[in-house]
Amino acid sequence: MTTAILLMGATAQTDIRYKTGFLALGELVLLCKGKKCFLMVPQLEFGRAVQCVKNAEVLTPEMLGNKGKNRHPVVRLLNRERIKSVQICPGFTYDAALMLQKAGIRLQLATGPLFPEREIKKNSEIKMIRESQQTAVIAMRSAIAVIAGSVIGHDGLLRYQKKVLTSEMIHSLIGKIFLEHNCGGDGIIASCGIQAAEPHERGYGPLRANQPIVLDIFPRHLQHGYWGDITRTVVRGKASPAIREMYNTVRLAHSIALSMVKPGAKCSRIHQAVVDEIEKHGFVTRQINGRPEGFFHGTGHGVGLAIHEAPGVRKESTTRLRKGHIITIEPGLYYPEIGGVRVEDTVEVTSTGWRYLAPCEKRFEI
Amino acid sequence: MTTAILLMGATAQTDIRYKTGFLALGELVLLCKGKKCFLMVPQLEFGRAVQCVKNAEVLTPEMLGNKGKNRHPVVRLLNRERIKSVQICPGFTYDAALMLQKAGIRLQLATGPLFPEREIKKNSEIKMIRESQQTAVIAMRSAIAVIAGSVIGHDGLLRYQKKVLTSEMIHSLIGKIFLEHNCGGDGIIASCGIQAAEPHERGYGPLRANQPIVLDIFPRHLQHGYWGDITRTVVRGKASPAIREMYNTVRLAHSIALSMVKPGAKCSRIHQAVVDEIEKHGFVTRQINGRPEGFFHGTGHGVGLAIHEAPGVRKESTTRLRKGHIITIEPGLYYPEIGGVRVEDTVEVTSTGWRYLAPCEKRFEI
Repeated sequence: MTTAILLMGATAQTDIRYKTGFLALGELVLLCKGKKCFLMVPQLEFGRAVQCVKNAEVLTPEMLGNKGKNRHPVVRLLNRERIKSVQICPGFTYDAALMLQKAGIRLQLATGPLFPEREIKKNSEIKMIRESQQTAVIAMRSAIAVIAGSVIGHDGLLRYQKKVLTSEMIHSLIGKIFLEHNCGGDGIIASCGIQAAEPHERGYGPLRANQPIVLDIFPRHLQHGYWGDITRTVVRGKASPAIREMYNTVRLAHSIALSMVKPGAKCSRIHQAVVDEIEKHGFVTRQINGRPEGFFHGTGHGVGLAIHEAPGVRKESTTRLRKGHIITIEPGLYYPEIGGVRVEDTVEVTSTGWRYLAPCEKRFEI
Repeated sequence: MTTAILLMGATAQTDIRYKTGFLALGELVLLCKGKKCFLMVPQLEFGRAVQCVKNAEVLTPEMLGNKGKNRHPVVRLLNRERIKSVQICPGFTYDAALMLQKAGIRLQLATGPLFPEREIKKNSEIKMIRESQQTAVIAMRSAIAVIAGSVIGHDGLLRYQKKVLTSEMIHSLIGKIFLEHNCGGDGIIASCGIQAAEPHERGYGPLRANQPIVLDIFPRHLQHGYWGDITRTVVRGKASPAIREMYNTVRLAHSIALSMVKPGAKCSRIHQAVVDEIEKHGFVTRQINGRPEGFFHGTGHGVGLAIHEAPGVRKESTTRLRKGHIITIEPGLYYPEIGGVRVEDTVEVTSTGWRYLAPCEKRFEI
């Protein structure tokens, strides 16, 4: 008999959503024993949970009766179900682990994910990720249309409808498109020039002509919770030779990585091909006083109910791609004195290769 | 000498933001030893972190040199700083705890918060929460203006600009106002009629005349990260006697709770006063097949970098209010056959009582 699986704590919440389809503001606990699952929810969430969840018995701490009332509700549930041993995930909290051990429950720390099948997306999931990716593409095209339609002032600043165009205006434009498509997402990036040398800088202030503008757009659907993810780098006007060379190299690395995507391909090898290609063009990756420059992040990551999930397409990865994996391919180059460039698509691994979840043209100078 | 404090893992991230002001998509680690703090960030975040964080030494795993390279970066940092014992918070992850113990680090599980001062807001923080609360009020007034300006159709549905007014349209309207004020927030509630009997139901479909519409609005500022929180219940048209009685009772309970808010007041007692007032008016709180009805959540919660934080204003709370606490007061009543009502304000505990962070009138029938 397989050991029961216990999920609780902040890091387990997307796994619980994956298994039950239920999302709540408060913390949920999921216990699975063979085919039987129990979802424990705060009383506040009971009505919604009962309506939503069909594959688990929904209960509240209050429903466990009076026996052992001083014990933690999870212990009472385990006792009721005569479960003496549970598997927990690495993100399980230490205090909960101690509490269970004190109550005589044996813990097995899982070395991998508790629901490894989550990595391989079902058709219904691919459809939902595609929906979010389509929203990302609409937002990308709108943002690029505004930047392309802006006027270059004598001061080098972009103007749109007579106002200086800023990162914040692009964030807001994209946010509105998210809303119209029932999506949310706070981290949208629209960073210009040397700001873009920080991969996660959201960007602030005026957008400038002849500078790289990195647009990284990742909406999460508010109903079903799946993400999309796309990045483009554009220049309004003319790119400097340095930025052009960075862009061409990143595009080439991106194409090489994509050409390797198919079932059986090693994620680490795809990443290495990107590293090699970038080096081949003379771009150095190094740290100066701790600050990295060059290409210093992974080539990609899985996308699903979490924006970053397995499989990682990076150096340390031991995964081979399989049909149904959804991954990003997103090489980038970053130099504090020059700026940043990144190009990212989210693709589905098919039986013979890959396909875009939602295609989007790559415009550079606009 | 006090024991060093180690924060890592998902649940520690708002504490790390509190202490350092830095927010990142990836996971951060904070180590504090007396006045000296170390913030370990993924290499990807180093440049932004160095710019943003002034009260901690920012470092990356890569900066720890080659000594003990096979050990976890946190262990290498602890070894470098000759720290043999650390305090961890309850949300600390089990795998990280085991990893540290194996490396010979002694763990002390803190019984309370590691930064208890976070509960008491500084003036600078109150200002930021007020900013978010003002956005919440603007969004509330706009939503109520649209509902009040709607036309009641023969079918009982509300129409605005010739379209049937829906929960989703209100979500979208509020989301747009958030964007204009540099705020985000996905969980906005605009639920009507019996949907509102579920406190956390976001609402869907047409809004109806003569039914309670619960609007629960909580924006988070995208820059500084502090939240606001407000709830109103309105009826377009005329409330049924049952809903009117529920509303009047909730309003009364809300006033009684507020009148008790001042330094020294016990949170549990404020909650009990609300429970008593609601019972006094004949409203029963009970469960039917596990589903609760009546008043079955806390009276309020702290608001800050987390939307729900200490102090809780609830039965189990042992806290006495202090100047600088920011709390919500939000009694509600919920009956599956009738609907739901909730009224919520966020207030600051002052030296003599309380004040609204941002006042907002309470309109009922509109």
